[in-house]
Amino acid sequence: MSEAPWMEADRTVGQRELLEATFRVLRTHGHSGLSIGRIAAESGRSKATLYSHYDDRDELVRDALVVATGRLTRRLEALETDDPAAALDATVELLLGPASTVEPSIVAAREVVVELRAEAAVDDGLREVLTAFDDRLYDYLRECLRVGIEHGVFEPGDPAILAEHVAATLNGALVASVSTDREVASRVRAGLHAQLEPTRQGS
Amino acid sequence: MSEAPWMEADRTVGQRELLEATFRVLRTHGHSGLSIGRIAAESGRSKATLYSHYDDRDELVRDALVVATGRLTRRLEALETDDPAAALDATVELLLGPASTVEPSIVAAREVVVELRAEAAVDDGLREVLTAFDDRLYDYLRECLRVGIEHGVFEPGDPAILAEHVAATLNGALVASVSTDREVASRVRAGLHAQLEPTRQGS
Repeated sequence: MSEAPWMEADRTVGQRELLEATFRVLRTHGHSGLSIGRIAAESGRSKATLYSHYDDRDELVRDALVVATGRLTRRLEALETDDPAAALDATVELLLGPASTVEPSIVAAREVVVELRAEAAVDDGLREVLTAFDDRLYDYLRECLRVGIEHGVFEPGDPAILAEHVAATLNGALVASVSTDREVASRVRAGLHAQLEPTRQGS
Repeated sequence: MSEAPWMEADRTVGQRELLEATFRVLRTHGHSGLSIGRIAAESGRSKATLYSHYDDRDELVRDALVVATGRLTRRLEALETDDPAAALDATVELLLGPASTVEPSIVAAREVVVELRAEAAVDDGLREVLTAFDDRLYDYLRECLRVGIEHGVFEPGDPAILAEHVAATLNGALVASVSTDREVASRVRAGLHAQLEPTRQGS
């Protein structure tokens, strides 16, 4: 497998320590609490060390988003779309599964993506990373839905429209699960099954 | 109509000026750029004036979110659910309609909600306001879907599950439209129609 830019193995040990510290600070204090001083303290390194790895805070935060989205995308693209129902289940579990059954590194990546989405509205660098992430989620879902519709596993429909719809639903449920006290994941999961699978009306 | 706490008429003129300034700063600089100094400058008032209306920045930001969600909720709850297809169309237009066809005050409210969603992950005050907003969106959609299913306007299904699904889709599309350069609204709109309306398979 080629080393894509989002592979954490591409980062130096020092960068990885700073990225993990950035993840922890983001998840505890939010984007507004993400100061260079706090990241340095959390990583146990000096600010000077931080600046030897990254030009400034924006570059570090952008790299944290590249790593977070990369973790999710890599996992997604490893799923086999030749069993589209299982692939869709695995996608829903990856993005909406409870913290008790999903690996901590994935839960952390999901929260970092949500934390930085709002900031992407006013930050072109973050916006570019999230556009690429949503593009890949969309491409993956479209292929999965195309195969599933072709094989009669999913109801007939336009894979392009359905994929955008399912991507929005997954992103919306993920954002709501982080930003409210509402329990949305299990109902949305049931809703996606009802929407896509032809058995839903007992036929 | 009773004066609910989210009615802007409840706010003093000074508060309303500060709230509108907070909206503008949030939409231009994001949550990370939302300092008391910048809000005061944007409103043309002194910091002292600001502190005469609000105890601190957190109280002002929370009130901005109460006003933004209130604008959307009030509009939503004025829609008549006895024509559920039209009510659903109007809901989609309210939350996803292009800035060229939706009133500026609604576009501003939508962006403020997206901007503050991420921060709600680490701020209990904001989290409480967004939980209430999503609860009301859900309740409204459930009623709209219940009536539509009963009248055969929408496909059969469980209104509770469908409402959570549609709420997640709308929130996800709104967040994606603000945080990426992708054009999602029109496809998601088409996807919702295909999901809910019995004519979708040409039957």
